[in-house]
Amino acid sequence: MSPLNPPNLPSGAAPSGSRFRAGPVELGGPGFVVMAGPCSIESREQFLEIAQAVKGAGATMLRGGIFKMRTHSHSFQGLGEGAFEIADEVRARTGLPLISEVTDPRQIPDLGEIVDVLQVGARNMYNYELLKELGRSGLPVLVKRAFSATVEEWLAAAEYVRVAGNPQVALCERGIRTFERITRNTLDLSAVAYIKANSDLPVIVDPSHGTGVRALIKPMCLAAAAAGADGILLEVHSKPATALSDGQQALTIEDFREIMRDLKTLLPALGRELHSLPQVPARAGLKPGAKPSLLFAAGTAIPSSGKP
Amino acid sequence: MSPLNPPNLPSGAAPSGSRFRAGPVELGGPGFVVMAGPCSIESREQFLEIAQAVKGAGATMLRGGIFKMRTHSHSFQGLGEGAFEIADEVRARTGLPLISEVTDPRQIPDLGEIVDVLQVGARNMYNYELLKELGRSGLPVLVKRAFSATVEEWLAAAEYVRVAGNPQVALCERGIRTFERITRNTLDLSAVAYIKANSDLPVIVDPSHGTGVRALIKPMCLAAAAAGADGILLEVHSKPATALSDGQQALTIEDFREIMRDLKTLLPALGRELHSLPQVPARAGLKPGAKPSLLFAAGTAIPSSGKP
Amino acid sequence: MSPLNPPNLPSGAAPSGSRFRAGPVELGGPGFVVMAGPCSIESREQFLEIAQAVKGAGATMLRGGIFKMRTHSHSFQGLGEGAFEIADEVRARTGLPLISEVTDPRQIPDLGEIVDVLQVGARNMYNYELLKELGRSGLPVLVKRAFSATVEEWLAAAEYVRVAGNPQVALCERGIRTFERITRNTLDLSAVAYIKANSDLPVIVDPSHGTGVRALIKPMCLAAAAAGADGILLEVHSKPATALSDGQQALTIEDFREIMRDLKTLLPALGRELHSLPQVPARAGLKPGAKPSLLFAAGTAIPSSGKP
Amino acid sequence: MSPLNPPNLPSGAAPSGSRFRAGPVELGGPGFVVMAGPCSIESREQFLEIAQAVKGAGATMLRGGIFKMRTHSHSFQGLGEGAFEIADEVRARTGLPLISEVTDPRQIPDLGEIVDVLQVGARNMYNYELLKELGRSGLPVLVKRAFSATVEEWLAAAEYVRVAGNPQVALCERGIRTFERITRNTLDLSAVAYIKANSDLPVIVDPSHGTGVRALIKPMCLAAAAAGADGILLEVHSKPATALSDGQQALTIEDFREIMRDLKTLLPALGRELHSLPQVPARAGLKPGAKPSLLFAAGTAIPSSGKP
Repeated sequence: MSPLNPPNLPSGAAPSGSRFRAGPVELGGPGFVVMAGPCSIESREQFLEIAQAVKGAGATMLRGGIFKMRTHSHSFQGLGEGAFEIADEVRARTGLPLISEVTDPRQIPDLGEIVDVLQVGARNMYNYELLKELGRSGLPVLVKRAFSATVEEWLAAAEYVRVAGNPQVALCERGIRTFERITRNTLDLSAVAYIKANSDLPVIVDPSHGTGVRALIKPMCLAAAAAGADGILLEVHSKPATALSDGQQALTIEDFREIMRDLKTLLPALGRELHSLPQVPARAGLKPGAKPSLLFAAGTAIPSSGKP
Repeated sequence: MSPLNPPNLPSGAAPSGSRFRAGPVELGGPGFVVMAGPCSIESREQFLEIAQAVKGAGATMLRGGIFKMRTHSHSFQGLGEGAFEIADEVRARTGLPLISEVTDPRQIPDLGEIVDVLQVGARNMYNYELLKELGRSGLPVLVKRAFSATVEEWLAAAEYVRVAGNPQVALCERGIRTFERITRNTLDLSAVAYIKANSDLPVIVDPSHGTGVRALIKPMCLAAAAAGADGILLEVHSKPATALSDGQQALTIEDFREIMRDLKTLLPALGRELHSLPQVPARAGLKPGAKPSLLFAAGTAIPSSGKP
Repeated sequence: MSPLNPPNLPSGAAPSGSRFRAGPVELGGPGFVVMAGPCSIESREQFLEIAQAVKGAGATMLRGGIFKMRTHSHSFQGLGEGAFEIADEVRARTGLPLISEVTDPRQIPDLGEIVDVLQVGARNMYNYELLKELGRSGLPVLVKRAFSATVEEWLAAAEYVRVAGNPQVALCERGIRTFERITRNTLDLSAVAYIKANSDLPVIVDPSHGTGVRALIKPMCLAAAAAGADGILLEVHSKPATALSDGQQALTIEDFREIMRDLKTLLPALGRELHSLPQVPARAGLKPGAKPSLLFAAGTAIPSSGKP
Repeated sequence: MSPLNPPNLPSGAAPSGSRFRAGPVELGGPGFVVMAGPCSIESREQFLEIAQAVKGAGATMLRGGIFKMRTHSHSFQGLGEGAFEIADEVRARTGLPLISEVTDPRQIPDLGEIVDVLQVGARNMYNYELLKELGRSGLPVLVKRAFSATVEEWLAAAEYVRVAGNPQVALCERGIRTFERITRNTLDLSAVAYIKANSDLPVIVDPSHGTGVRALIKPMCLAAAAAGADGILLEVHSKPATALSDGQQALTIEDFREIMRDLKTLLPALGRELHSLPQVPARAGLKPGAKPSLLFAAGTAIPSSGKP
């Protein structure tokens, strides 16, 4: 069951069938997934503008932080519950599934109603109590690699979710800490290749945090695809200079379009293609004051027939 | 208020008065504190035997894991609530205050009744929701450094507890991740010297995890004292070979006695001395089935008179 | 002149025209260069067999260690001068230019007669006396990144060669040291993207040392190309299991052919193509006992007309 | 003969008798050695003033850079041969043996006449050709640890000197590269304890480079002694603010006196004492223009009788 054969990696024979759906999107399948959006949801206008722009450029999933993990207690910590209605409306209007971070087990029930993938941030990769609760939740989970987690530890973190009964887990490489100072982190693409060869888990790459340098994001998106990643997670902002968090590494809309163009050229040479969304009518947003409801069948396991 | 002057460390002028008590023990004062005991509480007999032995050798605080954070979901995870009565009895019989790890905000109320210092493990240093709850609890807290946390991040983690209203916070250096493979981690004693020079937080050093090699623990205890640490945290086991966790780095009782002897010689040359406990009669343990109660006034703030 | 604007990287405006020739091969031009061969030249038969095989598969340059840098004084240190005739003959028979490591300034005159590119190994990147001599030699130089060199230091090492009068310098990323243990090193492709964006130096990637794991070499070759590298350097052996050095990371001939096939598909999607060699008749080898002579005009500067 | 038992460290039984003399100073014996002086010899006045001051404060050996290894080719590279007469005169007038760095095998004959210990810098630890020549020279050698050398590699570098016939080798820990940014390097004192437990090589600690922060040098000197080091190597300058290299980490004369005072208190508690020099009359310096001559019997092996 485990991708590991402790204490020596790996078992070789990867279990099959771990690809899964988050709303209309399949992770770990042949389609290359592009998750894009702002670091944090800052306002209705900001999130809607960016969401529509990334959708127009071909993104398959929307990102947007609601609860933020910040080093300093005095930094902007996200809008929290104040972003729930915004998130729900924008998700409905664009038809894009939403990924957002969960930072406390007690957030899972509410957050699970408005997001399609619950992200475990790098700082919480070792938070096993959170991972176990996510395992019990049955919702799709993306586990980011901790700042200096070994690949063995990272796979073992995903295993905490699986062992608790939830097979819908993907990993996200977001750079590791090294002595190097020109980049915020060192993006470890060999780890991506290793996991694709030795486990069945989908792997997403985050070059925004992985480099922290706008000019390096495009080449690292292409390199991530070439290394075998199943998708990328990107910070995009309509006005990076005024972003409340991580502005220095946010792509502009135009940067993002250029990356999409290049990926469309590159992926076929790798035997893959961009994940495309079904043409569904945009959903109406919530009425003001309405309680968020489950619009997508988030986290539906893909049965052996392949039918969602 | 913050020990940091972002973005450039440090403010220089350290706030005074951050020393605090955990039961009869003062952290951050002139006395050098020795916390010792097994990695995990495994049974009543095991914990009582080790506790009495380390007390006899001069330890000032008892350690014993109740909830364990283990990389693999299939490893021994501690006795959990099953260790509550054991912990309470052994603490009462030895008269030693107890430090143990908290891994979930929901454990704080119960754990707070039987332990005198709540330890935040390296894996949870970035778990800000847990730190905030500990801030609200008012209980003494020891924050271990994460595997690759910068000193700035580590100080900022302690700040989450303080900002939530709890000044009773100490730090614990337990080694960082590097490329070196002869030791489990690289013990970073310059970080200890840095924090002593630039903040008012008590700093404890854990050479057991910091090296992971039994033969290196004694020299690193002495070096920690020389670098300015306020105490050490040690794994001691009566039968290391059969310990359920971390046996390879556990000291034997005899190893521990030798370290205590050497510290007694060394500390006066550094202008310090071993913290001594008041001679109090050993307390009776709980009657079987009794609810744990607050035996020590854990976390009493030290008034300006300095009298406990 | 310098790619750096100390103390803050980088100058932005990259000097043009730093591409250069090593025999019939151009480094830093539009053609993607593939350097392949054994870690060490072990015998005439071994080197000739591998050289012909990699040529047949499309390699554009031959690698083969003559002087080896080994951690332990008792390990195989290369054939040294005993490999000169072998190297010269195989280079002549295949028509492939040869890259090999120089480990001492005193080797430069002799080695310069039989190799087309002098490689400075990771262990010698900070050996400034060697770099200065190579600067004076006027021969093409490839500077590998030291185990934990910052990009700034690595560019500054290349600058030692340039300042001494030799513009024919390329860099080689070969992985850095991190805490990760599944790979021998962590291949840092963001550094490649950074250097391509901020300097004019050609950059080659060595996924053999960069990962140390045979199964990861192909995906990292493709990722290197996608990140913008100008070529790759690969260890290939006809019998990896019996190689005298680095056998565990050597590709088989068949592995190598597969990589070449995939690169031929990938590169056009990146706007590049494999460097092809002019169809020249294979040269006759040296007669036994003859002194090595300069067969290629190694290191011919490319005039502004761009004509070799 | 080797301190290593490859592939698994260590042999346990350390060979005895590897302590050796450099002039009147014994390395690896009971006396704790203090090497102090400026990063670089800048002028006769500067070096003489500092040398006399550190001698007055109790230093047992003088340091002073002649050939410098600098990251950037445009930085001050030391006075080179221009410092030979200054070095010789100051060494003669103070009676202190001198340690200085060798950066090229071709410097050994001349440098060997005016220095008592040849230092291999961190950047040259893997320069095996240099180590072999030093092995053949028979002169005392101090091998600094490379920026990210494993302990195994570091011991193996010393082995290159020994295998070439020179048993007079000591090691110097000078900090390793990590992600931490408050210190220039992370001083690895567990490596010191490890080597003292598992090899017979004397180990010196350099807290000046090891931290790069003046305020941390004193506590790390004390911690180094407590960890078992045989001595320390310190950068001291009479005017740190105007030093041509490394001024930010240079101790003032007063800082240095304070460290010496504290060491005199600390060492007896560790069962050691400061190495004291025999009371010899200061030697006259060279006459201007005279060729440097061998004033000390540098590197005399200590016979079993213990008589130099």
